[in-house]
Amino acid sequence: MANEETYISPESYPMVGGDGPHSYVKNSTFQRGFVEATRRMVLAAIAEKLDLKSLGIYSASTFQIADLGCSVGPNTFIAVQNIIEAVEHKYMEAENQNHSTLEFQVFFNDHSNNDFNTLFQTFPPDTKYFAAGVPGSFHNRLFPKSSLHIVHSSNALHWLSRVPEEITHSKSPAWNKGSIHCTGFVKDVAKAYSAQFSNDLESFLNARAEEIVPGGLMLILLANIPDGIPMSRTPEGIHYNFLCSCLYDLAKMGLVSEERVDSFNLPVYHPSLGEFERLIKRNPNFSIERKDMFTHPLMHKVYCAKFWAGLFRAATEGLFEQHFGSQQVVDQIFKYYSRKLEQNISFIMEGKTHDRIQLCIILKRK
Amino acid sequence: MANEETYISPESYPMVGGDGPHSYVKNSTFQRGFVEATRRMVLAAIAEKLDLKSLGIYSASTFQIADLGCSVGPNTFIAVQNIIEAVEHKYMEAENQNHSTLEFQVFFNDHSNNDFNTLFQTFPPDTKYFAAGVPGSFHNRLFPKSSLHIVHSSNALHWLSRVPEEITHSKSPAWNKGSIHCTGFVKDVAKAYSAQFSNDLESFLNARAEEIVPGGLMLILLANIPDGIPMSRTPEGIHYNFLCSCLYDLAKMGLVSEERVDSFNLPVYHPSLGEFERLIKRNPNFSIERKDMFTHPLMHKVYCAKFWAGLFRAATEGLFEQHFGSQQVVDQIFKYYSRKLEQNISFIMEGKTHDRIQLCIILKRK
Repeated sequence: MANEETYISPESYPMVGGDGPHSYVKNSTFQRGFVEATRRMVLAAIAEKLDLKSLGIYSASTFQIADLGCSVGPNTFIAVQNIIEAVEHKYMEAENQNHSTLEFQVFFNDHSNNDFNTLFQTFPPDTKYFAAGVPGSFHNRLFPKSSLHIVHSSNALHWLSRVPEEITHSKSPAWNKGSIHCTGFVKDVAKAYSAQFSNDLESFLNARAEEIVPGGLMLILLANIPDGIPMSRTPEGIHYNFLCSCLYDLAKMGLVSEERVDSFNLPVYHPSLGEFERLIKRNPNFSIERKDMFTHPLMHKVYCAKFWAGLFRAATEGLFEQHFGSQQVVDQIFKYYSRKLEQNISFIMEGKTHDRIQLCIILKRK
Repeated sequence: MANEETYISPESYPMVGGDGPHSYVKNSTFQRGFVEATRRMVLAAIAEKLDLKSLGIYSASTFQIADLGCSVGPNTFIAVQNIIEAVEHKYMEAENQNHSTLEFQVFFNDHSNNDFNTLFQTFPPDTKYFAAGVPGSFHNRLFPKSSLHIVHSSNALHWLSRVPEEITHSKSPAWNKGSIHCTGFVKDVAKAYSAQFSNDLESFLNARAEEIVPGGLMLILLANIPDGIPMSRTPEGIHYNFLCSCLYDLAKMGLVSEERVDSFNLPVYHPSLGEFERLIKRNPNFSIERKDMFTHPLMHKVYCAKFWAGLFRAATEGLFEQHFGSQQVVDQIFKYYSRKLEQNISFIMEGKTHDRIQLCIILKRK
């Protein structure tokens, strides 16, 4: 329920709000690539797998959709619009009608410190649904029992509810000094990250099992890493390692303390494909109905350093502020990192890496 | 639906957000007086008038509540908590149980430029309901058909969807030059304001008639003026007249143009008790179940000028900015007004006036 997410917890880092140069609104083209690339998959999944009759959907019904980890627009609006079009199409086909009388209610969810003001003020002018914002962590219950027909979550489940505690202690075998993410090279660190992801995913699935009506669908988009490949050999992994080296540079220059860099970790984990499927199958409430894999359409385009720096800053600025203190220091961190990224962009973008697997998985509530 | 309220319309002026010295959060004690004074009435109305069986409420049900024109906390949280306690009490009594298994979903509604971020970040830590924010004007549809069990609206319906057009034209017989509200002294102005209120209330009731389940309740709190008494003889009316004189003072000093003051009007109308009842009875979808009248508990306390100036600024700052331009000018307007109010507070507070009638009216969806 709402109480656990009422106040800004140190572990909730929303995307940068507003519409300034560092905002998510202005730096989310990459994430939109996900939404656009999966449009056909979402349409096909709803056409094949959604059974309106067994859901009890009839002409006077309300069809309820939630987007979990929505951030601010416009990606969430596009994703929701795709779902609504697919459901309407299916409904009109089933009823042999050329217009739909269904009403849609759409819940946009993210942490309570997400910029809902910007979200609400940038709704597209032609929305044909009743919109609501739902503040809170999707690792907890957010909605009443059996109240949702389709849940969507794009590029959000890799955010952990917290950094695993053991990797931040200098006396723990899992201390992650010298890294800021799960590189995949240190067994104890990988175990700690993996356990946190497993717990978080279980909480997520159990909460949704209560909220989704039997027969309802869950559409999850998530970047997985190929089985057996460490994160450090993916483009993001290389990018995080590069960022880590920047932070240690700045520690040497005296801008931040080395101890603060030692204890800094991203609350982010990309599971391998096998690991993710295994964890989903362990939950008895959902069946896997469809699974599509694709390469992100922008992955091999040579984007400029500014593009990547903007993308990364929009997603993580709050997290850096939380750990390193003032906005001024964070500005300097990102300034140094952007400059150095520019000098090294070809190394980052063209290094011999393994692509992540962009997975679109469709689950049905049994 | 959401589209009409998507972008900030010139006619939506939310309370001042955040928690600064001019915010609604810090300047809403007066409004809280309403909520506290009506607690007993709300409890009694729900106990007497809500029929859980006819609503189809059983143990696994979700009970849906909306607060329309909620602004930011804490008043809306207190009002919602009162309703939930009353419904739970009624449910436990009917089921002969000592705990309730009902789940509550609460929708907090206000204009899309309301400060939802502050609302979401100040939820009390012990909320036992699923919360959602709904952006949009309550003069339009906001929720799916037959989806709400109780609708609450406190001290909000006097806000019109717009200033009546005819009172702003210099060639109209209803031109309201020299006043900034419906004083009650000019027939054509009063007619224009009354017609706008009547249209707005009709839109409000028709939208709610679709959204509230048969048997569901609507609890409306609104300050009415006594029949036959012009607004200018109520404390608020005197206050608005005083503010108007301040604006003309400032025009003489050259801070604002006289034309801007001539065309400034508050989109606010307090109906007389008879008028309000007549308009409600005209709508065939609701029955009046209960009607309580009371005097606001703070009305006769001698509050300082700062208190009243703060209360008024929190509710109207956006409106002044919209009309008079820069924040700097608005600051100067409120500075002058506060100082002059201090010099005249006894005249305003102790003038021979007629109290407004604080009305708590309970409607049932037929």
